[in-house]
Amino acid sequence: MKKVITISREFGSGGRTIGKLVAEKLGYAFYDGELIEKVASQTGLSPDYIKARGEYAPSGSSLSYSMMGRPDNGMATDDKMFAAQRKIILELAEEGNCVIVGRCADYILKDRADALHVFIHADKAFRADRIVRVYGSTSKKPEKRVEEKDKRRRVNYKYSTDRNWGDAHNYHISLDSGLLGIDNCVDLICVAAKAYE
Amino acid sequence: MKKVITISREFGSGGRTIGKLVAEKLGYAFYDGELIEKVASQTGLSPDYIKARGEYAPSGSSLSYSMMGRPDNGMATDDKMFAAQRKIILELAEEGNCVIVGRCADYILKDRADALHVFIHADKAFRADRIVRVYGSTSKKPEKRVEEKDKRRRVNYKYSTDRNWGDAHNYHISLDSGLLGIDNCVDLICVAAKAYE
Repeated sequence: MKKVITISREFGSGGRTIGKLVAEKLGYAFYDGELIEKVASQTGLSPDYIKARGEYAPSGSSLSYSMMGRPDNGMATDDKMFAAQRKIILELAEEGNCVIVGRCADYILKDRADALHVFIHADKAFRADRIVRVYGSTSKKPEKRVEEKDKRRRVNYKYSTDRNWGDAHNYHISLDSGLLGIDNCVDLICVAAKAYE
Repeated sequence: MKKVITISREFGSGGRTIGKLVAEKLGYAFYDGELIEKVASQTGLSPDYIKARGEYAPSGSSLSYSMMGRPDNGMATDDKMFAAQRKIILELAEEGNCVIVGRCADYILKDRADALHVFIHADKAFRADRIVRVYGSTSKKPEKRVEEKDKRRRVNYKYSTDRNWGDAHNYHISLDSGLLGIDNCVDLICVAAKAYE
């Protein structure tokens, strides 16, 4: 039985919901928002700051800026946040029996033999439709919201891990939630997690 | 129930074996070598030629040659082969209840609603070890054999489909056979295929 399950997911794919249901089904702890607060309390950064930065490229609006080098204080804050998140994620994994959604946990825990790494994706139409149902509509087209969030996660992941977002090799199991449906994804992940005695 | 299952796989990952077992378990037909012969009989190309080309980049030893342009007859032969394979794969899918391994079937059948597309991968050490057990050793190091075959499949897939080999988005389910094991992969694929009534 795998003791730690990390879930990386595309915006609108239902990955967070899937993670929550997997945690309930296995009787595991579930970390997402709580994790952010825990990090914040350790680093002294405000929860709002961390929440906002978590979805964005390290330099904020311009990745090229971070590539070109910039004042130490900017980089140091990003690095400090990633280091603090990393520390918390390693501690949570050590406690075991948990599901961790997002925050590059797949990368941070890549060498842990008791971890199962999952990627949840779906096509853009499915996700655009789902975010309107789940989060409501805004003045921005849902397809545009999906594209922007995808880009941020992709860039953020690449910056923090130097790996390509959505590459099947980084995960033990990758699932299309649009085709398979939320419940089937939950079942498949539980089957995979239980496959180890 | 999905009527067509395509399996793309890294060399040495056990993807072909998994496909065969899935077919047995579901009572489906299994196509791999037979497919090649069937293509050959239609196109007039020899089975040996097609088998060799199937694993290689379209221009043989040099991809750059094909990029730079080359005599029509070379390109025409490759295109003729791909078109013939495509035709056969579409026909097999129409018959239904089958597992098709390799040959870009995932791409060729990407718009079929009754198809489940699977990618099987594993880390290099697992695959290097497995090919020696399954295919025996050669004068070449197994890691080198794995790398070379990976490169050929990656380039061939890119050339034929303009998609990136191993991108989770191209598949409904991607599995690490090294971690999950052959039998668990078979079970997971059958569960996913049966999830549709």
